[in-house]
Amino acid sequence: MNSSKPRKIVFIVSLSFLAFLLGVITGYFSRPVHKDSSQQLLEKLNRDGDWRLLEQFKEYVDTGYIDKVIRDLTRRPGLAGTPQQKINAEYILDLWQQQGLRAEIVQYNVLLSYPKGNHTNKVSLYDASGRELFTSKSHEKVLVEEESPEEVVQPFNAYSPSGIVKGDLVYVNYGRAEDFERLKAAGINVSGKIAIARYGKIFRGNKVKFAEDSGAIGVILYSDPADHTSPGDERYFPGGMWLPGSGVQRGNVVLIKGDQSTQGYPSTNYSYRPGEEEISKRFPSIPCHPIGYEDANFLLGSMVSGKVWQDWQGSLNLTYHLTGLMDNRTVLMDIQNENVYRPIYNVIAKISGTIEADRAVIFGCHRDAWVYGAVDPITGTSILMETARIFAKVYNSGWRPRRSIVICSWDAEEYGLVGSYEWVEDNMKWLQNEAVTYVNLDSGISGNYTFSSRTVPLLHDAVYKSTMALPSPYPHDSTDTLYTDWRSRSETRSGLPHPKIHPIGSGSDHTPFIALAGIPSTYSEYTGYIVDGKVIPMDDYPLYHTRYEQYELVKMIDPGYTLAKTITLFHCELIRELVDARILPLNVRTYAGVIVVNIRQLEKFRADFKVNKVEYAELLASTERLKTAARIFHQKIAHLDHNNPLQVRMINDKLQSVERAFIVPEGLPLRPMYRHLLQSPSGLNHYGGTGFPGLEDLLELPNSNPEKWPQIRKHVTILTHSIYSLAKFLEND
Amino acid sequence: MNSSKPRKIVFIVSLSFLAFLLGVITGYFSRPVHKDSSQQLLEKLNRDGDWRLLEQFKEYVDTGYIDKVIRDLTRRPGLAGTPQQKINAEYILDLWQQQGLRAEIVQYNVLLSYPKGNHTNKVSLYDASGRELFTSKSHEKVLVEEESPEEVVQPFNAYSPSGIVKGDLVYVNYGRAEDFERLKAAGINVSGKIAIARYGKIFRGNKVKFAEDSGAIGVILYSDPADHTSPGDERYFPGGMWLPGSGVQRGNVVLIKGDQSTQGYPSTNYSYRPGEEEISKRFPSIPCHPIGYEDANFLLGSMVSGKVWQDWQGSLNLTYHLTGLMDNRTVLMDIQNENVYRPIYNVIAKISGTIEADRAVIFGCHRDAWVYGAVDPITGTSILMETARIFAKVYNSGWRPRRSIVICSWDAEEYGLVGSYEWVEDNMKWLQNEAVTYVNLDSGISGNYTFSSRTVPLLHDAVYKSTMALPSPYPHDSTDTLYTDWRSRSETRSGLPHPKIHPIGSGSDHTPFIALAGIPSTYSEYTGYIVDGKVIPMDDYPLYHTRYEQYELVKMIDPGYTLAKTITLFHCELIRELVDARILPLNVRTYAGVIVVNIRQLEKFRADFKVNKVEYAELLASTERLKTAARIFHQKIAHLDHNNPLQVRMINDKLQSVERAFIVPEGLPLRPMYRHLLQSPSGLNHYGGTGFPGLEDLLELPNSNPEKWPQIRKHVTILTHSIYSLAKFLEND
Repeated sequence: MNSSKPRKIVFIVSLSFLAFLLGVITGYFSRPVHKDSSQQLLEKLNRDGDWRLLEQFKEYVDTGYIDKVIRDLTRRPGLAGTPQQKINAEYILDLWQQQGLRAEIVQYNVLLSYPKGNHTNKVSLYDASGRELFTSKSHEKVLVEEESPEEVVQPFNAYSPSGIVKGDLVYVNYGRAEDFERLKAAGINVSGKIAIARYGKIFRGNKVKFAEDSGAIGVILYSDPADHTSPGDERYFPGGMWLPGSGVQRGNVVLIKGDQSTQGYPSTNYSYRPGEEEISKRFPSIPCHPIGYEDANFLLGSMVSGKVWQDWQGSLNLTYHLTGLMDNRTVLMDIQNENVYRPIYNVIAKISGTIEADRAVIFGCHRDAWVYGAVDPITGTSILMETARIFAKVYNSGWRPRRSIVICSWDAEEYGLVGSYEWVEDNMKWLQNEAVTYVNLDSGISGNYTFSSRTVPLLHDAVYKSTMALPSPYPHDSTDTLYTDWRSRSETRSGLPHPKIHPIGSGSDHTPFIALAGIPSTYSEYTGYIVDGKVIPMDDYPLYHTRYEQYELVKMIDPGYTLAKTITLFHCELIRELVDARILPLNVRTYAGVIVVNIRQLEKFRADFKVNKVEYAELLASTERLKTAARIFHQKIAHLDHNNPLQVRMINDKLQSVERAFIVPEGLPLRPMYRHLLQSPSGLNHYGGTGFPGLEDLLELPNSNPEKWPQIRKHVTILTHSIYSLAKFLEND
Repeated sequence: MNSSKPRKIVFIVSLSFLAFLLGVITGYFSRPVHKDSSQQLLEKLNRDGDWRLLEQFKEYVDTGYIDKVIRDLTRRPGLAGTPQQKINAEYILDLWQQQGLRAEIVQYNVLLSYPKGNHTNKVSLYDASGRELFTSKSHEKVLVEEESPEEVVQPFNAYSPSGIVKGDLVYVNYGRAEDFERLKAAGINVSGKIAIARYGKIFRGNKVKFAEDSGAIGVILYSDPADHTSPGDERYFPGGMWLPGSGVQRGNVVLIKGDQSTQGYPSTNYSYRPGEEEISKRFPSIPCHPIGYEDANFLLGSMVSGKVWQDWQGSLNLTYHLTGLMDNRTVLMDIQNENVYRPIYNVIAKISGTIEADRAVIFGCHRDAWVYGAVDPITGTSILMETARIFAKVYNSGWRPRRSIVICSWDAEEYGLVGSYEWVEDNMKWLQNEAVTYVNLDSGISGNYTFSSRTVPLLHDAVYKSTMALPSPYPHDSTDTLYTDWRSRSETRSGLPHPKIHPIGSGSDHTPFIALAGIPSTYSEYTGYIVDGKVIPMDDYPLYHTRYEQYELVKMIDPGYTLAKTITLFHCELIRELVDARILPLNVRTYAGVIVVNIRQLEKFRADFKVNKVEYAELLASTERLKTAARIFHQKIAHLDHNNPLQVRMINDKLQSVERAFIVPEGLPLRPMYRHLLQSPSGLNHYGGTGFPGLEDLLELPNSNPEKWPQIRKHVTILTHSIYSLAKFLEND
């Protein structure tokens, strides 16, 4: 018994200890720890974006759908204001609704321009006795079978006034400001003549305006082979991608965008429209008309006076002359267009955010085309549609975005960004408060050479980051990304590691977002031509705005839709980052850096500024302050308490309105319809961007204008103030 | 042993059980339950305002401090641009800094107007032979001892041009639009004559403008006893509050506010200023000058032609005539003013919010005065100062506001709201993003009769609620509140339970906040005269803008500072609610209701609208939609998850920008410097508000103007669109 006692004690102690242990465990786990609603709520609100979603995007992306969309939407001409555009809108609406997206058609009634009734616009050449030697073709040849060729609108320039003008010709090269200056310097008079300009380099509307300002009575626009073919390469469409002689580039010639009858407000059913006379002030006052190079050959071949400078010589097989028709010939333009009110149809889909439903990323591409528009805009539209389909699919599999996504198919872009302008004007109130960015698409695949992007500085980083996340469409090895690919093909600024991103300029539907509402915008595409391993330098793809933008063209540019797939995934990834990142991926340091670089380019005016008492030093000082403020602001972000949803929101609210610091209600001094001090298009080329568009306009004024320097002084004050304001806004807390 | 076995078992079981129990307890409490940081954080973020703070306000309020501020700031004239105003700014800065507030002086360099050098502005009367019969007094008599009477600026109208004009007189009553119409209808020609107008009813600048438009060559403004004394009561200052015969009302006569040299941007050291000629276009083109009724007596007494209508007769002891001087007498005005650039000093203090530092309530009152300004603005400034002191004190005792409070002492208000305009222009970027409301003070205690408020509809409820929380300054019983008191003295609109709140109009420093930036504003005071139990009807207090606004006057109006204390507590309570309420106290339903009422007042134009194709029905429809949207929006607030700080912020963000829905960048059609479609001042009276100021301007145009109805059609489109936009903004989520 004695020997068993210690054993018993050991047993009892062990048992008690076990019981205690069991109790501890029971007690511990029986205590409710409410991974309580507070914690759950905060976890939800503080969730960051998840880059792994890209794997799903890659899995879902379907070139078959891209092909189907392109094929379906290029069967018949998609001209704005025609019944087909309503059918196309409903086609998209149906698809989106089938995919589970909340979508609707939003209609506006707008003023569009068409060749009048049965009239054929034409340019003719007459001999001294009045006999017609030549008349421009009324239609481009049918080269690939078409379902309804009769629906193809004849070549014309939208909003050209009607008119019959007759006279001598003057060749104005690309019709840029510097071209007209060169003519003037050479003593060549444009006044009273018909200007003939080749397409390219700048927006056609600017060419017409410069011609008008020089006293021309009409403008003929033509596509020179130098800019639309490759020397020695005879693969014209449909045998290749070069422009055939009968191809004509259509296009509008207005410098004020949106519906011409409702400037500053939307074209709703209750909207006031001024009379025709009032509206016509917004159009060129002289007729203009586009022709192909087969026709231009007759006109340029009749010119005999003043051999052109070397760089003005195009590629037609003749010696280009500045003016003077042989044998007292005359040229006649007979243009009859009419402006009519027609309904247009935007299709708008929305995926609501679950954490910040009142913050929206807008993604849009136009749908209307001059003819079939296979490249412009249907490559873009197909990418928009595929991106929308993929987002619908990940949404249906349970993904919920932090912010809202609004997806838009615009109508009547070709008429001067009409669909997007009217929608932005209509939705300005909430857009200015709640839109974080606008992502634009247009010709998504206009070439096969390189990725290219036009983006405001705030979004540069986001674009770079998205391209870095994607594989190269043409990989040499497994480390090649879209980014490395792009970098290897891009001109880079010396000293900067990244491929070049272009200023946003105008020319597509981002314009009302950035230049009216101040919403940071980006617009990317695959562009440039590489043929048989050779890079072909050209401004745009040769078949732009011609009848030959057909399905077959896309199949030549991007045969397996490798590029379309890449650009789709790029947009999926970019939009994912924009809607899901806890902190908006907008970089103010980059913006400050770009402003500093642009200001350095004003150095050349420094002496003029000094003489004319322009407060240039203060402008420099404001930029330095912004640079510092931006640096400190981003340091603050780095040290932010990401657990506090209001701190995060406050930072995002600042980021979101950085771009709006440069919106001035009165607009630019000479172009009040553009309100962005930095990101409005250049006054010399509507397609292009420039550092300080308002200042550039004023610097172009002749020194003899007494208002020139006072206006510059005032504008520099406003620039300086806007930069200081932004700095103070970032510093403020 | 056998008997002990069961006992042993019981013992072992009990022991184990106890050990287990001990274990459970140990385990349970050893588990960390973190009343975790998440919960604490959410509790902090979701904190609502605490009305009990009012008890502290009541405890702290100190009429001794109010008295000290009034006494200190009325010792010497506080004219803008003089050295004393810098001293006064530093006085306030010192007090605020002593109280622990973060404060600074913000300086602008602006164009101010003064009588020129040693010249004395005057109005004289000559007989036919050119002998001077009378000249207006150069100074008001000194009636109460003054420390530095030589610093008192002679009576003048700021920004009146210099000039010598000579001619006949025409009496234009109050110089309102209807007064000039009546003269015209009666065949009395104003053209080529000097207009003599009595002060009152409308802003003096409008009187001068109407006179100028009628062809007058000069304007004499005088204070008629009818509007500045009480019949049979001889208690003139300093024996009472009535205007003595020598008292003259000073004041500016410009219709565009802010620094006249920097329209649209702040007057910083680097700001561009146009030349003098350009700036002078913004001033009246004819000289004007104010006189007292002693002097007016000579002029009006010399007039003989056309007895005035009954309601034009003033209270001077003579028969008023419309025109015609006896015995070929003539009147001469000799005015020499100069415009000079001078520094002005705003003092700005800030208490940063702890939860939403980026949301700010701005509270301001001007500090400058024409002379001593004891009422205007020093009663207001003393209330501002006492409110600031109380907030500093509760802050120092541990209270932390949710949002930020910015407290502003404005300079140069008397010159056309210059200090506040320049500051708003300077700070526009963050104000438009981050300001939630502006609370204005000016003459805080201009009378002893009733509480009165000019407030935008969004803030009506907040004003009512704050008055309900406060005891009556004159209680009949313990249930009397400031609200019941106010209601018993106010005209109420039939059918509405609340005392009347006036439209905000202009006339004080809220103008740039509401009419340029769209920040909901409110402006309250104690006003109206009750003398010996009798209510005296008058537009404004009789000594307004005269030398006699001295400390002694305030002691007569509010002897024990009962009213000043009440108005201080009102502002403490209102600001507390605005900065601390979890949901901003802005009521969109009220706004919608006011718009509906205002639109009903357009009914009288219905026939005209129909004939001229104005889309009136759609305007009505938009209002109905807004009403519904506002109702649903407030229902949503009522059912909001107050636990979710982002949901709360999203609602507040919408509320905060409701007012901005009515800001249009292009401004009103005829007055682009005002940008608010609803809350801009009336074009007929700068002091007043009106339902649709832009529309009112256009409806005043003669029907012969071919632009009238097209402009109205366009403006109604813009009104309709802004109302629909707000409705959509509220509906959107």
